Amino acid sequence: MNLEPAVKYSHTLLSPIIAQGDTVVDATVGNGNDTLFLASRVGATGHVLGFDVQQPALDRTATQLTLTGMTRQVRLIHDGHEHLDQYLEPQQQITAAIFNLGYLPGSNKQIITHGETTISALKTCLAHLRRGGIVALVVYYGHPGGEQEKETVLQTVKQLDQQQYSVLQYGFINQIHQPPFLLAIQKR
Amino acid sequence: MNLEPAVKYSHTLLSPIIAQGDTVVDATVGNGNDTLFLASRVGATGHVLGFDVQQPALDRTATQLTLTGMTRQVRLIHDGHEHLDQYLEPQQQITAAIFNLGYLPGSNKQIITHGETTISALKTCLAHLRRGGIVALVVYYGHPGGEQEKETVLQTVKQLDQQQYSVLQYGFINQIHQPPFLLAIQKR
Repeated sequence: MNLEPAVKYSHTLLSPIIAQGDTVVDATVGNGNDTLFLASRVGATGHVLGFDVQQPALDRTATQLTLTGMTRQVRLIHDGHEHLDQYLEPQQQITAAIFNLGYLPGSNKQIITHGETTISALKTCLAHLRRGGIVALVVYYGHPGGEQEKETVLQTVKQLDQQQYSVLQYGFINQIHQPPFLLAIQKR
Repeated sequence: MNLEPAVKYSHTLLSPIIAQGDTVVDATVGNGNDTLFLASRVGATGHVLGFDVQQPALDRTATQLTLTGMTRQVRLIHDGHEHLDQYLEPQQQITAAIFNLGYLPGSNKQIITHGETTISALKTCLAHLRRGGIVALVVYYGHPGGEQEKETVLQTVKQLDQQQYSVLQYGFINQIHQPPFLLAIQKR
């Protein structure tokens, strides 16, 4: 059994905490892998809110959802995740959220997530997170602008009150090509 | 399901890779928790080599092993773990090793592990590690001398060839009281 890459470990952490019928957020739909994972966890009675600023990413994911019979529980939203609060009721609780920070592989490398909007979306997620819920951020940082966003995010999450949140960092530290690492924030 | 503390996660990683009959190393017996865990995994046909420089720690652990019926598979060695190579055959393979870096809780805080001897023992473990095997280091560093050892160990493991080893760092980064973090090194 091999040590899990950060992307895989994010699913390992989220799987046991997400129940059928839950509401969850995919803050960066991208290639749709996380959207499909979340949709399968919440089931037909659950809700996945999936954000992306690139319409082609949403279109491709919509196709995958149709092919897997999971369109019902997913709302794909062509908007920046910093507007998440406009799509949630004030008292609505979420069980989980996933962010993939960086650019969409195979797409325009100029279109990247940014520290400021990422933090804004993260704070909304934390405000709606139920106890025991987890926000997972998979941090890619090898691209131009990546290092800056990484530092912004790290500084923010390191300052989260340990009485309210546990912030785990998981990553491989002997790799030449800066693989992504995982930040998992659990509400206590 | 809560995010696991580093100590617990070390067992989570090692459990599935250790089989009955395997040979493993507890480089720092201390309170014996890891020794008992390893002894239960390798079973009566396996071998645990347990090192500690403090005889009282070994005595207490011997008692626990007697009470749990696991004396047969454990050899408790009153010696520094930097001499591990004297206790292994040249071609002998090990499946796992655990280090707890720091001092023994409830004991003399002056008796701590040191970077130089830790690295020596670590290198011996890596030389004998079978493919897929894992060396787990739980790094306490809040005590005098701890920061120095932490840096020595981190610098060493970051330089391990990624073709031969995966080096995972797992730890909580928003805690005031410097909880231990885990380094898990898997041979590829």
